[in-house]
Amino acid sequence: MLKASEVGNTLSKAEFRAVVPQLRVDLVNAQYDLRAADFGVLLFVAGDDRIAGNAVVNRINEWMDARFIRTHVLGPLTAEESMRPRYWRLWRDMPAKGRIALMAGGILRLLHENLTGDLPDHEYDRAIEHLETLQEALVADGMLIIKIFLHTPTKVQRKRMRKAASDDEGWRIDQRDWAMLELLEDGEAKLEKLLRRTSVAGAPWVVVEATDARHRDVAVARTILNAITARLAGKPPLGPAVSDELFSPGDRQATVLDAVDLTRTTDRATYAKDLNRLQRELHGLARQARDRGLSSVLAFEGWDAAGKGGAIRRITQALEAGDYRVISTAAPTEEERKYHYLWRFWRDLPPAGRFVIYDRTWYGRVLVERIEGFAEPAEWQRAYDEINDFEDQLVERGFYVAKFWLHISAEEQLARFQARENTPEKAHKITEEDYRNREKWGDYVEAIDQMVVRTSSSEAPWHVVGANDKLTARLEVLEHVTKGLRRALRRLP
Amino acid sequence: MLKASEVGNTLSKAEFRAVVPQLRVDLVNAQYDLRAADFGVLLFVAGDDRIAGNAVVNRINEWMDARFIRTHVLGPLTAEESMRPRYWRLWRDMPAKGRIALMAGGILRLLHENLTGDLPDHEYDRAIEHLETLQEALVADGMLIIKIFLHTPTKVQRKRMRKAASDDEGWRIDQRDWAMLELLEDGEAKLEKLLRRTSVAGAPWVVVEATDARHRDVAVARTILNAITARLAGKPPLGPAVSDELFSPGDRQATVLDAVDLTRTTDRATYAKDLNRLQRELHGLARQARDRGLSSVLAFEGWDAAGKGGAIRRITQALEAGDYRVISTAAPTEEERKYHYLWRFWRDLPPAGRFVIYDRTWYGRVLVERIEGFAEPAEWQRAYDEINDFEDQLVERGFYVAKFWLHISAEEQLARFQARENTPEKAHKITEEDYRNREKWGDYVEAIDQMVVRTSSSEAPWHVVGANDKLTARLEVLEHVTKGLRRALRRLP
Repeated sequence: MLKASEVGNTLSKAEFRAVVPQLRVDLVNAQYDLRAADFGVLLFVAGDDRIAGNAVVNRINEWMDARFIRTHVLGPLTAEESMRPRYWRLWRDMPAKGRIALMAGGILRLLHENLTGDLPDHEYDRAIEHLETLQEALVADGMLIIKIFLHTPTKVQRKRMRKAASDDEGWRIDQRDWAMLELLEDGEAKLEKLLRRTSVAGAPWVVVEATDARHRDVAVARTILNAITARLAGKPPLGPAVSDELFSPGDRQATVLDAVDLTRTTDRATYAKDLNRLQRELHGLARQARDRGLSSVLAFEGWDAAGKGGAIRRITQALEAGDYRVISTAAPTEEERKYHYLWRFWRDLPPAGRFVIYDRTWYGRVLVERIEGFAEPAEWQRAYDEINDFEDQLVERGFYVAKFWLHISAEEQLARFQARENTPEKAHKITEEDYRNREKWGDYVEAIDQMVVRTSSSEAPWHVVGANDKLTARLEVLEHVTKGLRRALRRLP
Repeated sequence: MLKASEVGNTLSKAEFRAVVPQLRVDLVNAQYDLRAADFGVLLFVAGDDRIAGNAVVNRINEWMDARFIRTHVLGPLTAEESMRPRYWRLWRDMPAKGRIALMAGGILRLLHENLTGDLPDHEYDRAIEHLETLQEALVADGMLIIKIFLHTPTKVQRKRMRKAASDDEGWRIDQRDWAMLELLEDGEAKLEKLLRRTSVAGAPWVVVEATDARHRDVAVARTILNAITARLAGKPPLGPAVSDELFSPGDRQATVLDAVDLTRTTDRATYAKDLNRLQRELHGLARQARDRGLSSVLAFEGWDAAGKGGAIRRITQALEAGDYRVISTAAPTEEERKYHYLWRFWRDLPPAGRFVIYDRTWYGRVLVERIEGFAEPAEWQRAYDEINDFEDQLVERGFYVAKFWLHISAEEQLARFQARENTPEKAHKITEEDYRNREKWGDYVEAIDQMVVRTSSSEAPWHVVGANDKLTARLEVLEHVTKGLRRALRRLP
């Protein structure tokens, strides 16, 4: 979720100057229209970057009409607050219909208290559960909840803070910033899980890359603007099926696919050598996994003709025949359609010590089913949470889980289609439909980006693999699998 | 939830024989119609009465067409099952559209594992969270989930098992039954919380009194029949707003109000003596509560003219002026209507060591707002969970929480209305509306019964107090408060 959002978005000074004036006008207008609306806006701003958090809160107050937005910093509980249940202050400071309340920092506090031992696991879990119920109740009641999480890699923050300490900006940095950084370096997996668990339907966390301040401010402002204007325009949705699309930061510049290097190549000799080394290694690890009962679930997705089959074969070549199954997922059969879409994937989960490799997966719900309209918006929007919960159950049961998106350029795909058509034994693999799908390339890019950001975690990561060069891609997949398996084996009790 | 459902329902042999034949025909017909429907039925039968559980599962299979219902007993995980996440077997045995799957006993197993230490708190919490997500996903996907919990007081079970051990039925009882009983005697509060936490919107637990076997079987069969036929008749609801009414066991004989003794009276002399003793006691306890920071929330509901005000005054007479507030809840103001209905009640929560006494409460949502149509069915139906979560937060923060329903007979109410009209200083308290409300007595009885059963717990109990005699009612309220406060003080760390 966090790592996956690090795609290197930036905005130049010139671009920033070009978009900001209109953005500010639009924001204030939206605020004005909101005053007569029958819903309030609860805006959470949190982040692993304390400095960015402060800057963004100031920015929002600068760009919007500060008279009609109340800012509340969710710091340590005051004496007054600590006499009541934890969320009393949220209720106290709740926006009325037509108003905006900006709540800064709350979710990090929960994590902080847990990591420092002030909030035992059981109470932490209950606090998360209450927060889910609270949000569901508010969303059902018509509240618009916008949740922005500002993410800057700790490495970048560390460097920036060291630099700042020695220049004019040094006064902005204090001990709390360093303490927070250290805490998060250990707690990132837990933070991601917290964000997943508190992303209820209709109120997901939107992760905004905060490395570049100009991009950050514009992305935050657009997220807020889009959410409010879309909601003002549409009918207030009944129940929790608020559109996630309300929350996309608009004309986002970079996606998770942009961060992929498609130029890498591998020569045949290196490939042969590395393939042998990696397959030998995988063979040994798979043996340990079988002996120690570690189950593995590998999920493969990718553009048509990206080479999923070839990559999967390079894995299975290293495994014993009885130790794995490859599940090719096609459109559901008539029988399968009688069940929830996750049912067939649950059915095929591996027993102890075995591999199941899914060639296309449950992610079809938020890819092809979303784009082709086979699933209603409410259906694919709630699927992110359902999928995260599914994979959490695998991880908690001790499974090794990894997900691969094999990425090729549109040009490379076209070249492969044409090559296939000219290869008699492969010509049947190309149909009209494959060409039609290419027209939806842009829709898929958006869907892939949302999918990866919302469902990647350190425990069940997405690996977006550049596959313009098949040999490079196969080696990279094997490297991820061996590395992931080693880690999973180390974590076994 | 459990204790509250003990209202003494029974069915005579003659009544049983009169209703069962038609019930069986209806059940089989419903099953037949279901086969062509676009939803499956997931039927959970669990209970604190193991013997009743077995009997009911057999009964369902006897009365329905066993060819189209698959029964799965959720016993200890098999070797095959324990290799996968906990809910794998639920997915495996999921009913397809048009089918019924009966799952017996699962929820008790979760509690059992936790109470015996096999499932640590953190994993127990996660298991509950996954179960909520699972149900929400299935409900959203169209599944009809019916959850029946069979409750027999442990005292009754103990007696029955001792008796059975010495007669022909002895072979039915084994060590597991005794072990379960002992476990539950310690774990009842936890069991109730588990039932509340797993009662998601659209899939609440229906508690069926299992003390009388004939009533039990008929109530279970009617619950199933009503749920399936209502769902077959109506449009499948979009989202989680499935009607709770689907799950009411039909022409239920007794309600929580029937269990109240309205004949008790207290003479003036006894009243004066007991009142003095109880108020002195309350005064001392309130002082301790203030010194030790124990906050109290007392919620009063009741029929018009039942004497709420008088009962509240007998409490406040014993408190120091600065230690309490009485909040009279009227229809929400224009300002209050701009917020979630719980907002104003959160706002008024007491600080540490103080009392807040609500004269009418958040339960208006499931009483007057339900009956007058001020809240949509989906709104008041999800309110049970929202209210339970609200009160759980108070209890977890260490508050003493108690709820009172002052019950009078319809005749007594009429007499009081007339007496008020003849008393100049009280005549303004009676309006046309009060008389109109009397016409809805039956609707209120149903709403009160559902409210008490779904929101009463050992930690935040409902006390249904017979108030035909005001003096008796006031003493009883004071007794509950002093007893509850003493208990809450003992539990303070």
